[in-house]
Amino acid sequence: MKLSGVMPPITTPFQNGRLALDKLKMNFQKWNKTGLSGYLVLGSNGEAVYLNEKEKIKVVEVSRKSIPKSKIMMVGTGMESTDGTIRFTNQVAKMGADCALVVTPSYFKGSMKPQVLYDHFIAVAESSRIGILIYNVPQFTGINLEPEVVAKLSEHPNIIGIKDSSGNIGQLSEIIHLSKKGFSVFVGSAPVFFPALCVGAVGGILAVANVVPQECVQIQNLFNEGKMNEARTLQAQLTPLAKAVTTKYGIGGLKMAMDLAGYFGGDPRPPLKKPEKEVDEELKRLFLQTKSCQSDQKYIKF
Amino acid sequence: MKLSGVMPPITTPFQNGRLALDKLKMNFQKWNKTGLSGYLVLGSNGEAVYLNEKEKIKVVEVSRKSIPKSKIMMVGTGMESTDGTIRFTNQVAKMGADCALVVTPSYFKGSMKPQVLYDHFIAVAESSRIGILIYNVPQFTGINLEPEVVAKLSEHPNIIGIKDSSGNIGQLSEIIHLSKKGFSVFVGSAPVFFPALCVGAVGGILAVANVVPQECVQIQNLFNEGKMNEARTLQAQLTPLAKAVTTKYGIGGLKMAMDLAGYFGGDPRPPLKKPEKEVDEELKRLFLQTKSCQSDQKYIKF
Amino acid sequence: MKLSGVMPPITTPFQNGRLALDKLKMNFQKWNKTGLSGYLVLGSNGEAVYLNEKEKIKVVEVSRKSIPKSKIMMVGTGMESTDGTIRFTNQVAKMGADCALVVTPSYFKGSMKPQVLYDHFIAVAESSRIGILIYNVPQFTGINLEPEVVAKLSEHPNIIGIKDSSGNIGQLSEIIHLSKKGFSVFVGSAPVFFPALCVGAVGGILAVANVVPQECVQIQNLFNEGKMNEARTLQAQLTPLAKAVTTKYGIGGLKMAMDLAGYFGGDPRPPLKKPEKEVDEELKRLFLQTKSCQSDQKYIKF
Amino acid sequence: MKLSGVMPPITTPFQNGRLALDKLKMNFQKWNKTGLSGYLVLGSNGEAVYLNEKEKIKVVEVSRKSIPKSKIMMVGTGMESTDGTIRFTNQVAKMGADCALVVTPSYFKGSMKPQVLYDHFIAVAESSRIGILIYNVPQFTGINLEPEVVAKLSEHPNIIGIKDSSGNIGQLSEIIHLSKKGFSVFVGSAPVFFPALCVGAVGGILAVANVVPQECVQIQNLFNEGKMNEARTLQAQLTPLAKAVTTKYGIGGLKMAMDLAGYFGGDPRPPLKKPEKEVDEELKRLFLQTKSCQSDQKYIKF
Repeated sequence: MKLSGVMPPITTPFQNGRLALDKLKMNFQKWNKTGLSGYLVLGSNGEAVYLNEKEKIKVVEVSRKSIPKSKIMMVGTGMESTDGTIRFTNQVAKMGADCALVVTPSYFKGSMKPQVLYDHFIAVAESSRIGILIYNVPQFTGINLEPEVVAKLSEHPNIIGIKDSSGNIGQLSEIIHLSKKGFSVFVGSAPVFFPALCVGAVGGILAVANVVPQECVQIQNLFNEGKMNEARTLQAQLTPLAKAVTTKYGIGGLKMAMDLAGYFGGDPRPPLKKPEKEVDEELKRLFLQTKSCQSDQKYIKF
Repeated sequence: MKLSGVMPPITTPFQNGRLALDKLKMNFQKWNKTGLSGYLVLGSNGEAVYLNEKEKIKVVEVSRKSIPKSKIMMVGTGMESTDGTIRFTNQVAKMGADCALVVTPSYFKGSMKPQVLYDHFIAVAESSRIGILIYNVPQFTGINLEPEVVAKLSEHPNIIGIKDSSGNIGQLSEIIHLSKKGFSVFVGSAPVFFPALCVGAVGGILAVANVVPQECVQIQNLFNEGKMNEARTLQAQLTPLAKAVTTKYGIGGLKMAMDLAGYFGGDPRPPLKKPEKEVDEELKRLFLQTKSCQSDQKYIKF
Repeated sequence: MKLSGVMPPITTPFQNGRLALDKLKMNFQKWNKTGLSGYLVLGSNGEAVYLNEKEKIKVVEVSRKSIPKSKIMMVGTGMESTDGTIRFTNQVAKMGADCALVVTPSYFKGSMKPQVLYDHFIAVAESSRIGILIYNVPQFTGINLEPEVVAKLSEHPNIIGIKDSSGNIGQLSEIIHLSKKGFSVFVGSAPVFFPALCVGAVGGILAVANVVPQECVQIQNLFNEGKMNEARTLQAQLTPLAKAVTTKYGIGGLKMAMDLAGYFGGDPRPPLKKPEKEVDEELKRLFLQTKSCQSDQKYIKF
Repeated sequence: MKLSGVMPPITTPFQNGRLALDKLKMNFQKWNKTGLSGYLVLGSNGEAVYLNEKEKIKVVEVSRKSIPKSKIMMVGTGMESTDGTIRFTNQVAKMGADCALVVTPSYFKGSMKPQVLYDHFIAVAESSRIGILIYNVPQFTGINLEPEVVAKLSEHPNIIGIKDSSGNIGQLSEIIHLSKKGFSVFVGSAPVFFPALCVGAVGGILAVANVVPQECVQIQNLFNEGKMNEARTLQAQLTPLAKAVTTKYGIGGLKMAMDLAGYFGGDPRPPLKKPEKEVDEELKRLFLQTKSCQSDQKYIKF
């Protein structure tokens, strides 16, 4: 299985505060018809930090049944403790996950020196039955993993890639240049998906791909065909929606946009909230703008 | 029970990676002989983020048995989700905790607007069987709760205090001035314990109080007796040790210092580490300096 | 001359965009009747960065004539380059300044390592005909000078003090403890004036002292008399006005408040602006509240 | 004159602390033989903050004589005050500058709200006799100008472009998409030069172009010819040197590298320093690596 392409960090549907697993299945049925290369289960956008241990298992179970073998099933398994991460990684490995995404531990920020993080990832990689990818997401963790450390980690045979959500293309570029050949570098920030591909990223794990999977896939297809201007234009079209469902309105906004797009979004868990009712109109506009952009040339000015 | 005085956020002892509850009991026996007014169980320094659900329960059980009724038993119960926080708070309430310390949720930093945090604390307070205190610790969470929000929250009868670990005395001062009379404001940063008392804090929840409880208590006693110069001098004496066991060497350093002081420190859980062997000497020197300072006047230059 | 007490970083009056030196004289006449111990000329609040070389000289000339010998005349002379700082410091020395305040150079933040800053201050001190004080103001410079570096600098006979505007009382406390006996530590942030005195500061250089000099002086007087509760209460009363004329409304707000208080404030230089007209009401309320507080006991709740 | 291509922010040569204008002329003679499209005089790397008013004029004079009419002469004219900026901009206009680069004022960071910055740039543009470009450089100013504000400013006929040194490609991409057609967007960070071109930047104003101008020009040439892999490889080759002469060793490192490359670098002004002697070896290695990269295919792994 080639680790590349567009994958959504899937949201976790709730109804009346409880897991709505049937809704999750429905979402998968729709997503499976698109060009998505796989899925990230229990990522940040999956509200993994709001799920208890049992709920996480259920989400993995249902996902495993819903994801065809031809698509990647990546599961977020990072916990604050090294042993907890190893245990949970092997648990999802047994349940059929293809690979695991391990976030940098971060609670004790001052203690998370490069060597401490390096040792953590090596320990997890040594004991994990499936390949692991590093998850670098400074906006949530307050921790950034330097390219030099990533490069050293890429030498380990069981550390197979990274999702870098810093949005820092200079850093992504250095990671790609310094890391071992074959190390899979995904970008985790949709507004820089196109430039990330330009500097050599293999794909994107993008929140907005929950809403408009095919448009995200199309950016990569255009890039692969050498149609740079078209890819860049589609990217510019996508960016406002991508920002609205992440930095601007958070997971509440992402779920609201999914509802608009025919998926089940529903409510996030408190303390998260859905945005005000009026945001609906804005998201609809951004959504339609994104959908229409392939035939709409007015934004191409390069 | 009056909510004030010095309390350590107790460390959680491990041996071979497992809970060492007998060691915890031993530590309590020593601490109980000091002037500490109570204990914070499952705080940051208790490595709560590295404990699974069962382990947390065990630590609370043993603590309940070890803490005399005359001393405060506060338990850290904050989780990322509102419902999870409520459930765990009521669980420890049933087990006999006097009050709960609820950290600001923080993973989705961008979404944790003042109103979201306000609603979270109100929801927890409404459903909790015991009084709750707010835990503001920007260095770990990347989130700061503004004094105005704290003041509004202090109006709720079940929100009885705050532990502010920002180290920001201007902020602490405003919280004290703006909040409801009787709201218990603790400082959570030992290097500013004395100035915090000056601006009206009722006490301190201090990592270094795991190591030198009586010296911390002594600062507050001197302050209460109006011996400002002595209190200030003792504070100056304590600060280097206080920084060494927090910002400088983290929980590994704190546990190493506890071992030096006759408590059981032991190893932290990975990814945390003990500091290098040489640090032992430095900690010993800082420890002895702190212990000796009451009779040593050379540092008084005010 | 003893370096201590309350000093305002005086504002620079403009009319129609030009220096209004007669207004400056008038302000001095009023200030001179208060208990202020001296003045900081060409500080941040003097909009020094908006004055050209000639204008600076004129402001120093008029200030020298207006400041009685019994009060301290401190002049801000820090420039980005070491040589420029030395030249300007000696120029104001010749014009009669008592001492100079030298801000940390900061444009090339990444290059301003501790050793570089240390060497800069030593070079200035070596060549300066008057004593210099270090000016640490991270909110403007993005640079913080660590207490250990300040302590080393305090050993130089011509480095006689510091104005620390970080608002960080822990840091101020360490500076005071670590630095040479006799080194004059001023706090530069009015909301923490009282706690700064508690940890041993000799005085404050406070923007709000342009508006309510006597109330600031009164805090220090009460502190010196051991009237801690009164001092603390007056501080709490002063804080909202102090924040309004700095972080909230900037120099435009400070000048508006001066106009309300019977001083000449006038307009700041663009790009700075006066706040909206409505702010006038808010400032008036905060001003009256501060003035009335000595006889008003309702805020004392400690 | 088309505003695009590669321009170095030229360094200012000093000997014994004084301007060495003959050395500047020599540097221009060498640079003029390369494919550089123009020069930025008195930029950050020109140590403009260390020059007095007279020195600035001299540097502009010599530059005007040395720069052929076929190349762009851009001059950094931004000062903290609006009026000062206007005055200096018109002074250099009269001396023959083609356009001016105006940095965001930044000393009073808290007051530099979007509207204040917008009004500043509009006021300068209204009164300037030459076109101005905005200079956004958060790492020095602590201020970032949001893409929406830049877009609005781009509507003014006399605001003709921007140098964005944030290194943030997502932001650069948005600026390009949102701003008026014909608005010239330069990137100011060499490690992201290639991705900046991918998202539509017209060129780069790059410190490292002082040292290896032709290699920088070559990246843009390759990009223009559609040779993406070659451009990306050359970029990867250039990045270590580009970082060494900026973030890692600052202007001292840049000048040392210029000396190695056959230009006159010399010493920066204090407080800046040259790096330790040993850095020479590292810079030489990075320099040779960059020079050799066109024929060296081992780094191409894409």
